[in-house]
Amino acid sequence: MSRLPLFALALVMTATALDAQAPDARTVRERVRAYRQAHDHEIVRELAGLLAIPNLASDSALIRRNADHLRAMLERRGFATRLLETPGSPAAVYGELATPGARRTIVFYAHYDGQPVDSSQWVSPPWTPTLVSGARDEGGREVPMPTRAGETRGEWRLYARSASDDKSPIVALLAGLDALRAARIPLSVNVKVFLEGEEEAGSSHLREMLERHASLLTADLWIFGDGPVHQSRRQQIVYGVRGVMGLELTAYGPARALHSGHYGNWAPNPIARLAELLASMRDGEGRITIDGFSDDVVPPSEAERQAIDSVPPVDSALRADLLLAHTEANDAPLLERIMLPALNVRGMQGGAVGAKAANAVPTMARASIDFRLVPKQTPARVRELVERHVRARGWHIVHDEPSEAERAANARVLWMSWGEGYPATRTPLDLPAARALTRVVEEASTEPVVRVPTLGGSLPIYHFEEVLHTPVIVLPIVNHDNNQHAGNENVRLQNVWDGMEIYAAVLARLGAVWR
Amino acid sequence: MSRLPLFALALVMTATALDAQAPDARTVRERVRAYRQAHDHEIVRELAGLLAIPNLASDSALIRRNADHLRAMLERRGFATRLLETPGSPAAVYGELATPGARRTIVFYAHYDGQPVDSSQWVSPPWTPTLVSGARDEGGREVPMPTRAGETRGEWRLYARSASDDKSPIVALLAGLDALRAARIPLSVNVKVFLEGEEEAGSSHLREMLERHASLLTADLWIFGDGPVHQSRRQQIVYGVRGVMGLELTAYGPARALHSGHYGNWAPNPIARLAELLASMRDGEGRITIDGFSDDVVPPSEAERQAIDSVPPVDSALRADLLLAHTEANDAPLLERIMLPALNVRGMQGGAVGAKAANAVPTMARASIDFRLVPKQTPARVRELVERHVRARGWHIVHDEPSEAERAANARVLWMSWGEGYPATRTPLDLPAARALTRVVEEASTEPVVRVPTLGGSLPIYHFEEVLHTPVIVLPIVNHDNNQHAGNENVRLQNVWDGMEIYAAVLARLGAVWR
Repeated sequence: MSRLPLFALALVMTATALDAQAPDARTVRERVRAYRQAHDHEIVRELAGLLAIPNLASDSALIRRNADHLRAMLERRGFATRLLETPGSPAAVYGELATPGARRTIVFYAHYDGQPVDSSQWVSPPWTPTLVSGARDEGGREVPMPTRAGETRGEWRLYARSASDDKSPIVALLAGLDALRAARIPLSVNVKVFLEGEEEAGSSHLREMLERHASLLTADLWIFGDGPVHQSRRQQIVYGVRGVMGLELTAYGPARALHSGHYGNWAPNPIARLAELLASMRDGEGRITIDGFSDDVVPPSEAERQAIDSVPPVDSALRADLLLAHTEANDAPLLERIMLPALNVRGMQGGAVGAKAANAVPTMARASIDFRLVPKQTPARVRELVERHVRARGWHIVHDEPSEAERAANARVLWMSWGEGYPATRTPLDLPAARALTRVVEEASTEPVVRVPTLGGSLPIYHFEEVLHTPVIVLPIVNHDNNQHAGNENVRLQNVWDGMEIYAAVLARLGAVWR
Repeated sequence: MSRLPLFALALVMTATALDAQAPDARTVRERVRAYRQAHDHEIVRELAGLLAIPNLASDSALIRRNADHLRAMLERRGFATRLLETPGSPAAVYGELATPGARRTIVFYAHYDGQPVDSSQWVSPPWTPTLVSGARDEGGREVPMPTRAGETRGEWRLYARSASDDKSPIVALLAGLDALRAARIPLSVNVKVFLEGEEEAGSSHLREMLERHASLLTADLWIFGDGPVHQSRRQQIVYGVRGVMGLELTAYGPARALHSGHYGNWAPNPIARLAELLASMRDGEGRITIDGFSDDVVPPSEAERQAIDSVPPVDSALRADLLLAHTEANDAPLLERIMLPALNVRGMQGGAVGAKAANAVPTMARASIDFRLVPKQTPARVRELVERHVRARGWHIVHDEPSEAERAANARVLWMSWGEGYPATRTPLDLPAARALTRVVEEASTEPVVRVPTLGGSLPIYHFEEVLHTPVIVLPIVNHDNNQHAGNENVRLQNVWDGMEIYAAVLARLGAVWR
């Protein structure tokens, strides 16, 4: 022992001291809750202040006001901050809080820009944060902003654009940090935050931003605050997302609409042909019938299977609510279905229906598809397989609007216009980072945690994995019934309170648990 | 012979005398042509006068002015006339011209009402008949109305609503009659005319009209003046029409649109399911794959087959014009294809495509179909077969908008809304009436006549067969490129001139030829 150099000994001691300091989950929860009960009015007001700043990604002046406001919020908590910029993009707000002796670094991701609004869909204006005694569509009534501690109720909701998507998670993280400090509970990890300003506008500069600032953004784990908790209102951890890829199809009939009596069953009908093509790609039970499409699909791991099985069943209630007697693949569970790729026909249009229907063979038919991809599938490979399938059925594929000559020379002309798309990501549940985070969250929660191997939806998380080689796990806190992207977006206060406890537990315990 | 009563002898003699009087086809043609050359300006002016009266079936005062005008035109030619009425319907103009000694009676059918107009689509106003030196879209220029004989040219066109559909055939018939009289050529048949006033509005009172006036309308043959000649500009005789039947389909997805990532390939996609159903009814080559659908289809008779084979080939030119590399069923001839039933998808709609496409599972999808029927198929039987096909594929059929309970209780709910529809008719080519008319028309024409066993399109001719038990043959005269139903409807004068000769030949020779 005496051989050990002094500085090494010091390091070991610091780490050990740190671990020893880590309070148990219950202590963290109780301290954070007590802090929140004494400061709920201040937390709601801080959130409302942030929500009052309009945040369309396209409005650069206001977006900058949001960024400056967030930077000030971080600096008040001792973060070293920077605005990360790249030409033509809104700034990302970066903040860094070093924890002496911490061996692990996390980056907390959220975005501060919001979806466009249609004011006619809002009861109260989108950037006038309004407190309501419950969900508006369940009879909630507007209540005044609290002026004293203890006035709020967990079922109250705060209505505003980005209340859930994504400003509340930022406030919950910082309020959780405040609570730890008030309780003198030290952090267990180095904390970085990366707050994006153009997520709702498509994150088109995100990759460049990550590449440019890669050295600043090194970490052991990215934790995403985006998205909602489970429909059962239980805390949820999401380890992956599906990839996505859009495809627009246009099939052609005669150059002008023809009388369906005089020319019907002579002139090719583009709707019938496109319907036939779609039916060849996917059966009525959602099974994709494109050759080779499922070759790259990896079956769920044992850990993923166990996670799925432990999720509270919501399928029957969802079906009843949606007037669906059955769902695809013989009522297979939703979480099982989203482990697979999907082919969704998001639209089809040709000729006219109902009162406007004319007895004509239409000139063209269009369909719009979104594919959802799972790990190992790449957009390039999907495109290759789909086009091979289409060609094998006698279609001549073009990638731009076909010329008259092309139409006249080829029997079945299909204009295929692909969106860029991106692949899926899925962090293995047994990765040390995943195991540590899962443990912290499970210990911090009073109810069983829902572990979701993958979201059905898509987020461009692959950028983080590809550029930074860092795993990403989504740890959302907001209510699922938040009207995200629509009118009357809101956050339920209890979700903010629970979120504070979860994020505080991560800050206080992750470094100790993660071996 | 002496035993024969005197009156019988007189009848025989009259008939024989009448037959003996019948001039040959060439004589009729030459006399009619000479008359027309001397009176072309008057004929154009009489037609223009008729076309100047607006004729929307919904405008009862103007429709009545048309009827009165037509009645006066008939009375000037010695017809005994009546307006045939039935409650709520525009009057049909009826006229009767007895031919002493004639053994056969024909009824000439045309309609005098016109399709609605969209004035923005017309170069000259629809009820301001305008003479143009050729087709407007081929550089025709407006020319003044003729004031003297011999000023007109056959390629000139008269532009006005109903110029082709259907007022010109009426004027051609009456001008042909004038020409026969000027040449002192007697008629060979009793002539009745029946001019309908609501054909473009759906003929909803036609059947009642025929039933109410059945005794007045007895005849050996109805000759329809509606429709165009062949695309080769040759005279055409049409012996039948396809029946028609409309069907609107609505398939249902979730009660509200769902995020296609979170719920895609769990929530049933109504577009994909409807596409699959359509694809099961009809393949990409137009072959109807509904069980039993073709059982009632009678193959063409030898006479029909010969008629089809003798029609000038237009398919290749049509394909090139329409930018179609191929047509259905391996480029099978159009006239062969329309001898078969058709399933045309006239429209399909669900979700959204292109820039409006949202990543959602849509709530419903709609499709609109028109079936074309051939003889022996009835609308009732078609409906039965289609619904059996749909049920066999697991669909629950409703005939009204489904309730929430129906949607929640049945996996695949399809709202099927059937139009009334009507069956096909086809006069056998070897029926004596058909043989006689064909012979007269062939002898009157300088070019081979196009004999079409059936139109691809539909006309409610079955009413005449069902109510009056009288065969119907369509003997159209107007040009095919007449913009019927659209803006800039027109008639080519040469078609009116040729029509005069054809109709005059029928009047002068049909009774003699028809044994």
